[in-house]
Amino acid sequence: MDPVIRPLVKLALADIGQEDITAALLPKRTVRAAIVAKEDGYVSGLDIVMKLLSAFSLHATSCVTEGQAVAQGTKVLEVEGDIQTILSVERTALNVLQRMSGITTMVRECRISAPGVRIAATRKTLFPTYDKKAVLAGGGDPHRWRLDDMYLLKDNHLACMSITDAVHRAKKRLFTKKVEVEAETAAQALEAAEAGADIILLDNMTPERIRETIAMIRAQGHDRVLFEASGGITLTTLPAYAEAGVDIISLGALTHSVKALDLSLEILR
Amino acid sequence: MDPVIRPLVKLALADIGQEDITAALLPKRTVRAAIVAKEDGYVSGLDIVMKLLSAFSLHATSCVTEGQAVAQGTKVLEVEGDIQTILSVERTALNVLQRMSGITTMVRECRISAPGVRIAATRKTLFPTYDKKAVLAGGGDPHRWRLDDMYLLKDNHLACMSITDAVHRAKKRLFTKKVEVEAETAAQALEAAEAGADIILLDNMTPERIRETIAMIRAQGHDRVLFEASGGITLTTLPAYAEAGVDIISLGALTHSVKALDLSLEILR
Amino acid sequence: MDPVIRPLVKLALADIGQEDITAALLPKRTVRAAIVAKEDGYVSGLDIVMKLLSAFSLHATSCVTEGQAVAQGTKVLEVEGDIQTILSVERTALNVLQRMSGITTMVRECRISAPGVRIAATRKTLFPTYDKKAVLAGGGDPHRWRLDDMYLLKDNHLACMSITDAVHRAKKRLFTKKVEVEAETAAQALEAAEAGADIILLDNMTPERIRETIAMIRAQGHDRVLFEASGGITLTTLPAYAEAGVDIISLGALTHSVKALDLSLEILR
Amino acid sequence: MDPVIRPLVKLALADIGQEDITAALLPKRTVRAAIVAKEDGYVSGLDIVMKLLSAFSLHATSCVTEGQAVAQGTKVLEVEGDIQTILSVERTALNVLQRMSGITTMVRECRISAPGVRIAATRKTLFPTYDKKAVLAGGGDPHRWRLDDMYLLKDNHLACMSITDAVHRAKKRLFTKKVEVEAETAAQALEAAEAGADIILLDNMTPERIRETIAMIRAQGHDRVLFEASGGITLTTLPAYAEAGVDIISLGALTHSVKALDLSLEILR
Amino acid sequence: MDPVIRPLVKLALADIGQEDITAALLPKRTVRAAIVAKEDGYVSGLDIVMKLLSAFSLHATSCVTEGQAVAQGTKVLEVEGDIQTILSVERTALNVLQRMSGITTMVRECRISAPGVRIAATRKTLFPTYDKKAVLAGGGDPHRWRLDDMYLLKDNHLACMSITDAVHRAKKRLFTKKVEVEAETAAQALEAAEAGADIILLDNMTPERIRETIAMIRAQGHDRVLFEASGGITLTTLPAYAEAGVDIISLGALTHSVKALDLSLEILR
Amino acid sequence: MDPVIRPLVKLALADIGQEDITAALLPKRTVRAAIVAKEDGYVSGLDIVMKLLSAFSLHATSCVTEGQAVAQGTKVLEVEGDIQTILSVERTALNVLQRMSGITTMVRECRISAPGVRIAATRKTLFPTYDKKAVLAGGGDPHRWRLDDMYLLKDNHLACMSITDAVHRAKKRLFTKKVEVEAETAAQALEAAEAGADIILLDNMTPERIRETIAMIRAQGHDRVLFEASGGITLTTLPAYAEAGVDIISLGALTHSVKALDLSLEILR
Repeated sequence: MDPVIRPLVKLALADIGQEDITAALLPKRTVRAAIVAKEDGYVSGLDIVMKLLSAFSLHATSCVTEGQAVAQGTKVLEVEGDIQTILSVERTALNVLQRMSGITTMVRECRISAPGVRIAATRKTLFPTYDKKAVLAGGGDPHRWRLDDMYLLKDNHLACMSITDAVHRAKKRLFTKKVEVEAETAAQALEAAEAGADIILLDNMTPERIRETIAMIRAQGHDRVLFEASGGITLTTLPAYAEAGVDIISLGALTHSVKALDLSLEILR
Repeated sequence: MDPVIRPLVKLALADIGQEDITAALLPKRTVRAAIVAKEDGYVSGLDIVMKLLSAFSLHATSCVTEGQAVAQGTKVLEVEGDIQTILSVERTALNVLQRMSGITTMVRECRISAPGVRIAATRKTLFPTYDKKAVLAGGGDPHRWRLDDMYLLKDNHLACMSITDAVHRAKKRLFTKKVEVEAETAAQALEAAEAGADIILLDNMTPERIRETIAMIRAQGHDRVLFEASGGITLTTLPAYAEAGVDIISLGALTHSVKALDLSLEILR
Repeated sequence: MDPVIRPLVKLALADIGQEDITAALLPKRTVRAAIVAKEDGYVSGLDIVMKLLSAFSLHATSCVTEGQAVAQGTKVLEVEGDIQTILSVERTALNVLQRMSGITTMVRECRISAPGVRIAATRKTLFPTYDKKAVLAGGGDPHRWRLDDMYLLKDNHLACMSITDAVHRAKKRLFTKKVEVEAETAAQALEAAEAGADIILLDNMTPERIRETIAMIRAQGHDRVLFEASGGITLTTLPAYAEAGVDIISLGALTHSVKALDLSLEILR
Repeated sequence: MDPVIRPLVKLALADIGQEDITAALLPKRTVRAAIVAKEDGYVSGLDIVMKLLSAFSLHATSCVTEGQAVAQGTKVLEVEGDIQTILSVERTALNVLQRMSGITTMVRECRISAPGVRIAATRKTLFPTYDKKAVLAGGGDPHRWRLDDMYLLKDNHLACMSITDAVHRAKKRLFTKKVEVEAETAAQALEAAEAGADIILLDNMTPERIRETIAMIRAQGHDRVLFEASGGITLTTLPAYAEAGVDIISLGALTHSVKALDLSLEILR
Repeated sequence: MDPVIRPLVKLALADIGQEDITAALLPKRTVRAAIVAKEDGYVSGLDIVMKLLSAFSLHATSCVTEGQAVAQGTKVLEVEGDIQTILSVERTALNVLQRMSGITTMVRECRISAPGVRIAATRKTLFPTYDKKAVLAGGGDPHRWRLDDMYLLKDNHLACMSITDAVHRAKKRLFTKKVEVEAETAAQALEAAEAGADIILLDNMTPERIRETIAMIRAQGHDRVLFEASGGITLTTLPAYAEAGVDIISLGALTHSVKALDLSLEILR
Repeated sequence: MDPVIRPLVKLALADIGQEDITAALLPKRTVRAAIVAKEDGYVSGLDIVMKLLSAFSLHATSCVTEGQAVAQGTKVLEVEGDIQTILSVERTALNVLQRMSGITTMVRECRISAPGVRIAATRKTLFPTYDKKAVLAGGGDPHRWRLDDMYLLKDNHLACMSITDAVHRAKKRLFTKKVEVEAETAAQALEAAEAGADIILLDNMTPERIRETIAMIRAQGHDRVLFEASGGITLTTLPAYAEAGVDIISLGALTHSVKALDLSLEILR
């Protein structure tokens, strides 16, 4: 069993409990079924769901590719096997596929809305492994996976030491990790750039202020530092931030307020 | 460690990875912090988050009660302990609190919108343990926890046998479980009632059709059977379904398309 | 690996420890072996044991069907594979097969002794997953799997609130679960029926008293409620309880005092 | 949490499921309860059950000592804590205590019946960790814990090589493990003794034959080897085997066909 | 239980097995014991071992600080508790302390031998969590923790694409991770620098060649890139590499060929 | 998945983290690769590594047999499969193979240096399962696997009771386990032999003293007891101990201070 699906198999087993008492009423027989899109969107999680189904001795084939746009009515995946088993695992399979596809769809919409900018997720999710894959499938950037793969100095850290001091300490301690600094003012952003930060997170600034800040820092010759905007940005306000010249826009809602893509399973008799 | 939080502790540890490299730059010292509501809503998950924090040797006290309404700016919970640890666990604590509170808030809004009816969740969630608690905290009904705690005969099951046959088999096999039958027509609903179903799920029917169906079945003397409506019902259409006379309305969106309640952690120096 | 056998695989591995030092003395070679009944009974657990053996790369085929009667000397299952492995897993395979078959045999004997009644198990077992399957294989009813799949109000619960109050609270809290009430007197049983209990457990009553109680309650028009007898009932006293008119008889001894069915493994050279 | 109880905590949690829905109807309040013997016997598992209860934040104290004889009506253990929790864990606590005490009682009865001999268990159990502790609590010997802590050469091993060859290989491979050989004839027993076996298991022999075999081998000067009898020995036939001069008598039924000791929990209001 | 020690607790429990049969012969009583250095070195793992002991209800206090130099005979840690438990866990506690201290000692020796350079470990270890902590305790750099926290393009990757292409792809895919490139020639190193690599790993080059390469690249204005030397470097050859001007020297032997520091536990009666 | 490799699969997955970000830059394609010896030695762990690779859907075949001598440049194992996967698992596979082969090589060198004696490991390892297999592959003896498979009475135990008393208690408690006694003087060794110890561990004695002690005890007619030497013995001092007449020599360094055998993976294009 591919380890990436172990948590899903556990979920499916917990969902079944002692046995699927309703499915147990049916005679065992082999059927084919299809997962079909009930609305337009972008689908992801296909590979994961196929492995999940396979862990229950079902044979699945995908009808679309990871991250692909689908119209309402599109057949996304076909599965063949014992009907009791298909009905027992159906819900878990749909749950993961609907969530991942919902995320991928939202990432795609953000990218269409702000074409020149990287769309990034955050760590605001209880399902990081799958959610980050869904972000990648939509052409987004997963941002930090964990607290140990990049420094991100926020206000709560910077209350204890200066930006300059913090960046220097960070670089001295671990040479393999990038340093990102959250700035709420242009002055803080400049201090971060001068201290050698790799990325500056402009938090809760207006697009206007962001544009000025970036211009000022670039003018000081800091041409390698990346700028990221964050803080309550929505699909509507996204273009304004993109035009302000940031390299990256990150949105918590991509993973903390997912709208599932509507999919359903149909038995093909 | 209370076992209910084991999955959360695992999530927090996975999120930290080898170590929280940013927090590791800070000197160890004891601080107090508060989790504060950034918008109006109903809060749940307090007990769970307090246990999570306690598993990391932090001491937390709640400022509101489970399921309580909070206004923007309300302090929800206080925590005291080592600043490195607080910052390391902050995200996971907020993630679960924001999701659970988002669910509880939505359940409450549904109940306000349809006062005389039970609001029920579904199994459309990848986080059943906590989501179902959040539904209960909002005064909703969790519906089935797993596939083994009630029969629910749906169209895919009923393609293989008649409603009457299925209900009889179900009752014969396990006497401890209720039998619910999904019906898409009045005739199906009546057959279910006559076969002895405990609950009838009226799926994707208009409120009008639901009202007629219930009246017809009650007129046949089936006064113990419960009626549940389901299928794409939203906060807007909820009142019409409630007025149609159903006992229960279930909504997949309560858990598959959660909108997180906005909460944040602030260090109280 | 089918997840249902995961606990058994763990048991087998724990039983082997670092290695089966005795089997390690043998040259590796492929043999066939058979599991044979050493006494008459009914066999269950075949599917589980075949999967267990398969998890150790052994190939097994059953010679009888789940729940079937076998006479002393009957070959129950054949297995082919490396002799070292067969001898290493033999004990765990026999342990589960002997216990499950012991339970199935006892359930069958109860059913023969009391033909018109459902024979039910209890939660008095440290091996619920497999024991409940063995009960089903014998044509018995597993009763509650866990504390969350049916209400069962016992004396310790009813010391805090009236039967009527308790049943009403139960129904109000979760509409998907049945409510069973334990009664020690006819008056309690009647109160339970009138409060809307689905099942009444007549505990430690004589068959005589049970007959009277049922008659009295049926006479009040409560024709849907089921009656269960329990409390120290044995194979000998079973018929008297069955004749008293109960729907279900539950016996703790089915799972807490199992007599293993005698089975052994023989190498077929 | 003491790791020895981890499997029990898992069992208790699995038994509770999402929540103990019946106990959830009760108001939270602190009570005292007692576990009481409903029949005479010897009690074991007290320490384990106290740790289990403690893992659920209940405070327990034992009223008797491990392995002690108790008469019907004896209070075995007291527990204090939240009533919901006590009722939720009651069944798992009783399940382990009843099984372990049933084993300890049987071991004690065997020892009384055959005073000069060691009573040993086998690996015929799905609950080795706790069952072997119960055997020790009764003054019995647990025999092998796993397949790696002593050589035991049985007929299926000896079909591939001679006793002499097998014992020599065993001693050569691992010097830290004892070698036991199963013999069905006096000649086999002698060969084992001469090859240097530490223990000889006389399997399915009559007491008469056993006596002769031991005498013959002792006469050859093999004074260090131990003799064990096994094979369908019951409480009734035990004394005859003991008088035949064996050092150890092992009985599979001690753990594969346990009769639970009757215990129950009573709330002390 | 602090989760960082969970693997160690598992190891200790596996080492004990069913019970420490030798310690079980002793009467239970409380004693004090000390872990003492048997040779000079630098000690690490103290906090971890104290938590391990605490998980077994033993109370430990450290006598030195993490990473501190100790002379032969120095008392490193004191522990108080039940003698059976101390003897049961002694070996696991010493195993981790000896390994970690061995690593810390080696890191310290490297740093003394090459004062101006960062000493880094590799992923050549089966005990990454603890080994990397030991490296940090010695003032070394842990380098990558996992394959996901920095890009490291090696020859096997670069056989499929050019350095320039690979670095560009890497930067485009994930903006939060640094890019390190392994170079075996000065030309490759230059290409990496120009493509925007953050770190260049000069693999299996002589100190002479390294000096020239660095000078050449710095002369091109690449002043931010870091240089790392690796490949069979030992304590003896270390100074020459350090003098060649690299920023970092990484040694696989720090973790794949650890020499344990000699420590032992003594009961203080 | 063969359970013996579960810990390795976990290690590999932890090493990969969210994904191997470097390998993810490569196009997926099937390649062949070889693991090659970079120095002379004896190889072990082949079977384990092949199973590990197989758990990641890679197909491996070994080119040498377990425990076999290999010269520098020898191809040890070939693997075929997706290049991304091969590069992701390479490090874990090499880590285990290098450690196990390092141990096997050292055991072999000890055996060559002291041909007539058994070379035994100790419990001084954090990787017991694999290390003990490596010792066996080199023709050594694993000694105790856990604290429950043989009695070993050391000075800390014997401070509480006499040798005679301890040996008698041990034999009385569990008849299936051997008893080894650690002796630092000839008098202690004699007492152990007379009490019936199976093995005497002569700890930190000179070869001279060992020879005298063995002679003295054999002269008393104790011809079955085995003698083991231990305590700071190295490859250099080994022959002197062997010539002193012991049966077994145990060395902690075999597992606590492993020198990895140098192996590397090469892509065969």
